[in-house]
Amino acid sequence: MNKLLVFQTDFGLDDGAISAMEGVAYSVDIGLNIRHLTHNIPQYNIFDASYRLYQAINYWPEETTFVSVVDPGVGSDRKSVVAKTRTNQYIVTPDNGTLTHIARFVGIEEVREIEERNNRLKNSELSYTFHGRDVYAYTGARLASETISFEEVGPEISTDQIVELELYGCHKVDGGIKGQIDILDVRFGSLWTSIPYEDFKACGFEFGEDIHVEIYHNDVLVYSNTVNYGKSFADVAISEPLIYMNSAYHMAVAINQGSFSKVYGIGVGPEWKIVMKKA
Amino acid sequence: MNKLLVFQTDFGLDDGAISAMEGVAYSVDIGLNIRHLTHNIPQYNIFDASYRLYQAINYWPEETTFVSVVDPGVGSDRKSVVAKTRTNQYIVTPDNGTLTHIARFVGIEEVREIEERNNRLKNSELSYTFHGRDVYAYTGARLASETISFEEVGPEISTDQIVELELYGCHKVDGGIKGQIDILDVRFGSLWTSIPYEDFKACGFEFGEDIHVEIYHNDVLVYSNTVNYGKSFADVAISEPLIYMNSAYHMAVAINQGSFSKVYGIGVGPEWKIVMKKA
Amino acid sequence: MNKLLVFQTDFGLDDGAISAMEGVAYSVDIGLNIRHLTHNIPQYNIFDASYRLYQAINYWPEETTFVSVVDPGVGSDRKSVVAKTRTNQYIVTPDNGTLTHIARFVGIEEVREIEERNNRLKNSELSYTFHGRDVYAYTGARLASETISFEEVGPEISTDQIVELELYGCHKVDGGIKGQIDILDVRFGSLWTSIPYEDFKACGFEFGEDIHVEIYHNDVLVYSNTVNYGKSFADVAISEPLIYMNSAYHMAVAINQGSFSKVYGIGVGPEWKIVMKKA
Repeated sequence: MNKLLVFQTDFGLDDGAISAMEGVAYSVDIGLNIRHLTHNIPQYNIFDASYRLYQAINYWPEETTFVSVVDPGVGSDRKSVVAKTRTNQYIVTPDNGTLTHIARFVGIEEVREIEERNNRLKNSELSYTFHGRDVYAYTGARLASETISFEEVGPEISTDQIVELELYGCHKVDGGIKGQIDILDVRFGSLWTSIPYEDFKACGFEFGEDIHVEIYHNDVLVYSNTVNYGKSFADVAISEPLIYMNSAYHMAVAINQGSFSKVYGIGVGPEWKIVMKKA
Repeated sequence: MNKLLVFQTDFGLDDGAISAMEGVAYSVDIGLNIRHLTHNIPQYNIFDASYRLYQAINYWPEETTFVSVVDPGVGSDRKSVVAKTRTNQYIVTPDNGTLTHIARFVGIEEVREIEERNNRLKNSELSYTFHGRDVYAYTGARLASETISFEEVGPEISTDQIVELELYGCHKVDGGIKGQIDILDVRFGSLWTSIPYEDFKACGFEFGEDIHVEIYHNDVLVYSNTVNYGKSFADVAISEPLIYMNSAYHMAVAINQGSFSKVYGIGVGPEWKIVMKKA
Repeated sequence: MNKLLVFQTDFGLDDGAISAMEGVAYSVDIGLNIRHLTHNIPQYNIFDASYRLYQAINYWPEETTFVSVVDPGVGSDRKSVVAKTRTNQYIVTPDNGTLTHIARFVGIEEVREIEERNNRLKNSELSYTFHGRDVYAYTGARLASETISFEEVGPEISTDQIVELELYGCHKVDGGIKGQIDILDVRFGSLWTSIPYEDFKACGFEFGEDIHVEIYHNDVLVYSNTVNYGKSFADVAISEPLIYMNSAYHMAVAINQGSFSKVYGIGVGPEWKIVMKKA
């Protein structure tokens, strides 16, 4: 193991929760290198947790251990698991859908259920609401530091058994392609769609082409316009929209130096669909 | 010393202040491991600084050095101190109440006043507003790296002399117990009270029991309802309230996947009291 | 090189972007020590990026490598460069004005243009919008880890050639001095001006003196009052204003435990000028 331990949660950075998790991990092994993916996953949003893991994980070295805790079901009978990816990285997480994008786009080789009897911070038995500290940070630290082996996490369960959220993907439509608005490039307000670059490209679109974009909210058309397909924001004037391939290799829509999401009131999730077709 | 140096401030993460503090510390010893508790303590809020230290510190190894800078009195004659806890950890801070919870719940073994003549960043004499960088980060780094010993911080002062805020604690009332709403689980809006789990339990409450909760703002009743006492959020339906023991082993009130604080407009501090009694 | 690699961006902390940058850097050399200046530079605000670098850099050891990515021109023909400062630190950045304050107040010894053919993350050729990850974090990590030498970054360009923003500085006026409101101490709402302490002092002002302050928005007077010049906030009562020298050794205006910016609706930038003169 490479001693890199990466935390992600929906706990925010305003209190002592993340620090308690860090302290637990350093108490296991002071030589760990703890990093933070993001702690600003919107509360309870398992889809976003899954997506952000996918957005970052491929850039990290083999043997990196990720701990992702977006856990609205803490205290229920949802399982706690560690997944080993096909790229030899580990993810410690409640089994609630957080592994969806990793399973689909990276591949999971093996999953083990965390046996809490052996893998829980000592004297934390009375604590029922902070598995992030008592179980996940603790187990992630013990795995990343080779205090325990992957096998010692607990019994193997089938990779088919893990909880996966439904992904919309993309679908061919007359003259183009349809996807879902999955998530925002939060800071800049760009719309990141579920349409992979390869599928978009297969429609025959070329750089510089004007493309007709329609956005639907619950099947109601809320945006319909012609948008240029560029390589990057600088290909259009400031305040103009563009279609581009985002850094996660899916198609996106932005306004150069503006927020497409705010200007047009566009949201994310299953209610929000987008069509790109020949103008 | 274990080389772990943990910073906490109310400076936020929007400018270069925290980075200047880090740079000062790494200039003392490039082998330090600098971590961040939180920098989003509400401005000037010494009570919260004290509480967040208490929330995290017990999970960190012995010999960890904490630097906490919520310092509305910077430039006044408030002392600068380093406290050694009974658990062999160190806290570098203005002596303004930040040590309150540590003194009460962890225990302070020895306090030394920082002698600025020897313990101040070189060439910073003209700087009067950023002791976090010029005195606290610098002294914390020198202590954590064993550049100076605890004794070299400055003269010992009595532990009785340090400034402590008043803590409400809890009080028995007819059929139950009364406390203060101390702080929020900020991200989720749960109310964290001053009622320790042990005192609550001594009232005879059992898991699954319905408990009558009253919340008062300046002695005016603003919430009165029956709330179930559960182990964790999943014990009640989404949007339902519950009483639970929080991760700092005090009693708390939450709405499952909602914000109790926002829904009912409940705040924190001495103006906000809560009573839990047999329904 | 000292293995310290410090990131600054306007990407925020809400998604996986910073983590992807970290992963790229650790994939280059797992022994790097990656730190974060701030990721909350206001979007596209090159002036602020330049200022925050300047605010922090002098406190860091020699040989530290900074990566600053506020890059509205990503995908345009703006250059990518590495600057070596006179203090033997390195800054990896788009050449868009980010080096302005460093050039003026620290000094730049040598600049090299990043030759992307050799200095770009492998298999990232299709990615046009995230040079922060594909070029800057990658090159910064390779430089900080001595995987490449400064010379291997690319060809030297003249330090005169780099893009610099205009700085207002300060100007003598009848009985005092005039400057621009450059930036806020964001968290506390204090106004940080472009008036250096030395120039202010040369006007003959003394601690404890009442000074007449005028603030202009587009040449319209919006604030005019007498403000005490103190060493620190504690020199005036809570809610009272004061003039002080900030931690970057420029003159500033604050309200003790309040936000001057919010209370009086004062902004920053070329539209906002301030005059301090004998009362």
